[in-house]
Amino acid sequence: MSASPPFRPSRRSAVAPFVVMEVLAAANARAAAGADVLHLEIGEPGGGAPPAAVAAATRALAAGACGYTEAFGLPTLRCRLAEHYRETYGQVVDPARIALTMGASGAFILAFLAAFDAGSRVVVTEPGYPAYRNILEALDIEVVPLPTTLETRFQPTPELLETVAGPIHGLVLASPSNPAGTMLARDELERLARWCRARGIRIVSDEIYHGISYGTPAETILAFDDAAVVVNSFSKYFCMTGWRLGWLVLPDDLVEPVIRLAQNLFISAPTVSQHAALGAFADRPELERRIDGYRRNRAHLLRALPEVGLTRMAPADGAFYLYLDVGAFTDDSVRLCHRILEEAGVALTPGVDFDPPRGRHFVRLSFAGPEDEVSRACDRLCAWFRRERPSGGAR
Amino acid sequence: MSASPPFRPSRRSAVAPFVVMEVLAAANARAAAGADVLHLEIGEPGGGAPPAAVAAATRALAAGACGYTEAFGLPTLRCRLAEHYRETYGQVVDPARIALTMGASGAFILAFLAAFDAGSRVVVTEPGYPAYRNILEALDIEVVPLPTTLETRFQPTPELLETVAGPIHGLVLASPSNPAGTMLARDELERLARWCRARGIRIVSDEIYHGISYGTPAETILAFDDAAVVVNSFSKYFCMTGWRLGWLVLPDDLVEPVIRLAQNLFISAPTVSQHAALGAFADRPELERRIDGYRRNRAHLLRALPEVGLTRMAPADGAFYLYLDVGAFTDDSVRLCHRILEEAGVALTPGVDFDPPRGRHFVRLSFAGPEDEVSRACDRLCAWFRRERPSGGAR
Repeated sequence: MSASPPFRPSRRSAVAPFVVMEVLAAANARAAAGADVLHLEIGEPGGGAPPAAVAAATRALAAGACGYTEAFGLPTLRCRLAEHYRETYGQVVDPARIALTMGASGAFILAFLAAFDAGSRVVVTEPGYPAYRNILEALDIEVVPLPTTLETRFQPTPELLETVAGPIHGLVLASPSNPAGTMLARDELERLARWCRARGIRIVSDEIYHGISYGTPAETILAFDDAAVVVNSFSKYFCMTGWRLGWLVLPDDLVEPVIRLAQNLFISAPTVSQHAALGAFADRPELERRIDGYRRNRAHLLRALPEVGLTRMAPADGAFYLYLDVGAFTDDSVRLCHRILEEAGVALTPGVDFDPPRGRHFVRLSFAGPEDEVSRACDRLCAWFRRERPSGGAR
Repeated sequence: MSASPPFRPSRRSAVAPFVVMEVLAAANARAAAGADVLHLEIGEPGGGAPPAAVAAATRALAAGACGYTEAFGLPTLRCRLAEHYRETYGQVVDPARIALTMGASGAFILAFLAAFDAGSRVVVTEPGYPAYRNILEALDIEVVPLPTTLETRFQPTPELLETVAGPIHGLVLASPSNPAGTMLARDELERLARWCRARGIRIVSDEIYHGISYGTPAETILAFDDAAVVVNSFSKYFCMTGWRLGWLVLPDDLVEPVIRLAQNLFISAPTVSQHAALGAFADRPELERRIDGYRRNRAHLLRALPEVGLTRMAPADGAFYLYLDVGAFTDDSVRLCHRILEEAGVALTPGVDFDPPRGRHFVRLSFAGPEDEVSRACDRLCAWFRRERPSGGAR
């Protein structure tokens, strides 16, 4: 008796695997075998939850606060987030429009389901966070890839969007972006919002890296488009990855549909994590210190990497990634990453996760780790690339 | 500027709201106004997480364990669950087939996406847990309702399934069921499994109330069908609702698809909750004591309710619900619940959440609360129904 035919997985479950998981497994295997592996492949802040968040969680546990919350979360936390929008962006947001979710992951599922029917066409930039594409496909939404380049700093523009054939129902924005860390300036965001609004295109704005920027702070889409959906999370700025707590800011027309979907699909977000998040707001100075660390890591890499021929990149405006064009060295970034792991003991993410057609010429490097590790990894990378001869013909 | 046309919610987000939420809001409003409201409407065990779970979570917090886990969860917890299947059912389950999920909610999303394409037809019994129907519809799977009655104790049978017109791709089973608490006997489960297997129908078995039974323990579908998907959670037997931790036991063919879907849709389940769950297994005596409390509540209700004319029900074999036929008293269970809340101070769930067409003759009563509260609520209900004259004609 076996689960072979007539039993088989659905067609829509055939989403792409993450190549980075393969790299991570290889890196962990090398480390387990005693090798000294430095991790620049992981998009996870190293510091862990801020102490005030852990303290709040511990208090909540002691008080026995672990039943379900309302579908949209603790009213106190929704109010605190509304206050966050006033403080950070000068935006007035009704707490009724804010929903706590199971990570940004749960937020995307709810946003995409509420905004788009099966067969809708949603534009996603390449390179981009692979889960956008894969969640959309699993929900039977047609992904319309928009190739972007260093010339627009891997961000979409109305001019690029004009080149898309066929109807567009939605656009996923990410500023700062993953994998490039590039941001849309205020006027660029406003132009995109105006272009989309005039065409009835719903924007889903991934603002998960807001708060982590190295020049001008990021602007929220809420400033320009009240039909847009904002996705955010406590995982990046607040360093609370494993707590699985994200949030949505919803346009008026999607509040009721998302309440109904959230009740059915998720019931509520983790309760202890919601209490922890309330605490996290008290630790802003600690969180800002961590960003200073990322800033020094970034400066170090931006100084060192061009000296070994790695010049084709957009200096990250935010987040903690650099997306490096290694097309002068390889036509196969997966193989390159395996070689660098083996020969230099540094784990990187091949670009194919972010851009299947063109990512073979790119790698992503995360500088969210401790400064001494990023610095040692940078030394090793520079030594490796200095030895490695550009293959020339690739680009 | 307003998000009215051309912006509007997707058609598939138009899932039914939970009527119980309306009742809950009304009950909370009455309580806030000073009324003494007894809650028999909530499907949430009252005791909170067992002490060993809270202690394990507190230790994990102190140790800083709050990053992402692997997509399928902590290997130690997956092994502990495999051991649980050996202890409880005598079933050998490879931990590689076990995935920790964001509650049973996340487990259903993954199971339905991996097993069924858009347009597939999945049978769901009426009455049944409304989220089955609503998640399936949000994922563009066609829900095929199978009306069941007291005559089959609200469970499906091959004979009932034979009456379904058109193809069937899947069947959702729930034993013990919500809202009726009835279970499939071992031979009934085996017959259903054989019938489905012969027709290539994938069974998704909701085993969330396993461990809470008042006679023969529940059998897992794994004993009879290695193509079936098991959904379970730490919310009911382990009383860890707000921790949002569930699990899947997957057939071999769905392991890889669900890994890919889970990586993209959820990343991983809450880390602190996974540590807490590991601790929870140490508190079995405490958890069994709580079930003894449910057992006394159940016995009390089964003695008292028939004395006031509430005889049409299936004595719950498990879970902590009774599904009462109140058709002799009303044609409108929503109105009945509002009246009982107002006149007797007891909150119940109208049957329409579980069975839209016929639930107007039913209410669900949860006896997971403290014994003194359930006993007082029972007294009030009996007094109310004794005063109320059966309307006669309704059935």
